[in-house]
Amino acid sequence: MRSTQVAVDAMGGDYGPRVTVPAALQYLSAAPDVTLLLVGDQRAVSQHLGDIDPSVLRRVEILHSDFVVAMGDKPSSVLRGGSDSSMGLAIQAVKDGRAHACVSAGNTGALMALSRSILGTYEGIDRPAIITKIPTQKKHCQVLDLGANIQCEAQHLYQFAIMGSIVAQIVDNISAPSVALLNVGQEETKGSNQVREAARLIAADRRLNYVGFVEGDQIFSGEVDVIVCDGFVGNVALKTSEGLVKMAHAQLLEGFRRNLYSRLVGALAQPIIKRLAGQWDIMRYNGASLLGVQGTVIKSHGNANQASFEQAIERAIQETRSQLPRLINDNIAIH
Amino acid sequence: MRSTQVAVDAMGGDYGPRVTVPAALQYLSAAPDVTLLLVGDQRAVSQHLGDIDPSVLRRVEILHSDFVVAMGDKPSSVLRGGSDSSMGLAIQAVKDGRAHACVSAGNTGALMALSRSILGTYEGIDRPAIITKIPTQKKHCQVLDLGANIQCEAQHLYQFAIMGSIVAQIVDNISAPSVALLNVGQEETKGSNQVREAARLIAADRRLNYVGFVEGDQIFSGEVDVIVCDGFVGNVALKTSEGLVKMAHAQLLEGFRRNLYSRLVGALAQPIIKRLAGQWDIMRYNGASLLGVQGTVIKSHGNANQASFEQAIERAIQETRSQLPRLINDNIAIH
Repeated sequence: MRSTQVAVDAMGGDYGPRVTVPAALQYLSAAPDVTLLLVGDQRAVSQHLGDIDPSVLRRVEILHSDFVVAMGDKPSSVLRGGSDSSMGLAIQAVKDGRAHACVSAGNTGALMALSRSILGTYEGIDRPAIITKIPTQKKHCQVLDLGANIQCEAQHLYQFAIMGSIVAQIVDNISAPSVALLNVGQEETKGSNQVREAARLIAADRRLNYVGFVEGDQIFSGEVDVIVCDGFVGNVALKTSEGLVKMAHAQLLEGFRRNLYSRLVGALAQPIIKRLAGQWDIMRYNGASLLGVQGTVIKSHGNANQASFEQAIERAIQETRSQLPRLINDNIAIH
Repeated sequence: MRSTQVAVDAMGGDYGPRVTVPAALQYLSAAPDVTLLLVGDQRAVSQHLGDIDPSVLRRVEILHSDFVVAMGDKPSSVLRGGSDSSMGLAIQAVKDGRAHACVSAGNTGALMALSRSILGTYEGIDRPAIITKIPTQKKHCQVLDLGANIQCEAQHLYQFAIMGSIVAQIVDNISAPSVALLNVGQEETKGSNQVREAARLIAADRRLNYVGFVEGDQIFSGEVDVIVCDGFVGNVALKTSEGLVKMAHAQLLEGFRRNLYSRLVGALAQPIIKRLAGQWDIMRYNGASLLGVQGTVIKSHGNANQASFEQAIERAIQETRSQLPRLINDNIAIH
């Protein structure tokens, strides 16, 4: 593999190959040093290849799979029979060195279970977590878990803190990243038993720069570099933010369309509105890393459209080039 | 009591009487048919009365309390000794018919525990829940619980669904409000055991118009009238939204201040910007009801400033006048 090769679970997500295949081709046409392995039903995938340019076609390979993990499948049943699924084979391609990374818009629980079983986790890490950076009033912060683990023990939250801290060191270049736990109050007595116990574990680890509990609104104030929570809470916080940004965007456009005056001002304000929309769109940037498994696995939103799915592929390429998994592995060993 | 009398926990919140007392006086000066019972340390409260107008002074009563519930106190310890606290006495005033409602910016867990023990819950309701309406792209939706219950059993979520549905019927005048559970996916297999079991209980109750799971972004799409979740998740979702709206607002203002051109356009866009800011501020509107106890208890943000705390008092007045607790009691009996 000289160019960067990414395995794409072509069947995953709400729209399957209808979105993933055109996104893959579009991405390839702009990235001549990338090759893609499209994993899924040969016929369904081929159907969406369309009038493909030969220079792109040369960089596409199809790996057939008869079986698709459904959005409603339980991780336990996926573990029994899912390794032959398009998702399972895409992960296996990473394991076998046939791809540098894989991307899937499929069932999150299944992606986490299969990645963990096929690729294995780092020593000292029981469960992978989904991480992404969220823009704040200052810069951004790394937030995990965003949905891989619905219920977490204190020990898992502690491990997420270690991984998140390493990511902030490597990716954000912060020497002693501040780490906080997301909670319903800042006082020590607040929150669930798991969160309070996790606070004790994290505070006791002198390699971590633990700063205590933060509440939801502090995600965006930008005071903290890493925020740790369980996957249920993180998923709701992230999706709530995405929904709210979408509403704010719609209201902004509507505000400049209400009457003749606002339309005239809106025409003048175009560059400002566009810039604001861009700032908010980062919030909806697609593609998050499954952290803690020995390989690069990128989770795309299930409802990603073509442009969003391209962002997830882009994220897989970036992580491959930054060698994040290897660097995390090295750092966890030191930890 | 001919006028509406509200008991105010003057010591609660991050700022105590420094914020609550000026807010109370300001509110009274604009509401001649309201009287307030300020509960707290007589000296601390008096100190903030300032140069008070006699027509306002006539409508203020101080009820002394030596004891303040701290933000970090555990509900269990508050239950043992907290009934003489400013919070406890304010709730007791509602129980004794001395006030129509009470307001506190204090410790949420303590407010919930004391309200439950002093006022009692409705028959069939084990735990009170905090509810507020959240603006959406269409109208608004009622969301509960927002922080009274950190960990919930399925049965509790089911009871929240019943109460939320009644509120939407009474307050929003919707005959068969749609009720959804907040989850990390829409498929039946998604989420924690509690959420999945709650889905079964709610779906089996034919009096409820259950529409399934929704994800965080659907809070704002406005498709659902009532959204149910546990207090940890609801609290994080609400506070995350508040933080994000604050950031969006700051970015909007900054966007129209970046250079001479944007400042000029910003001057023309003033009415539009102001209207947008107003729409977003609803998101940060202060004061939520503790639903399920036999009386009106309003929870204010701990960090409310004077204007925000006035909103919480206003909410107490509105709920008293709408006779919400009595109507809920009647409807739960039918349920």
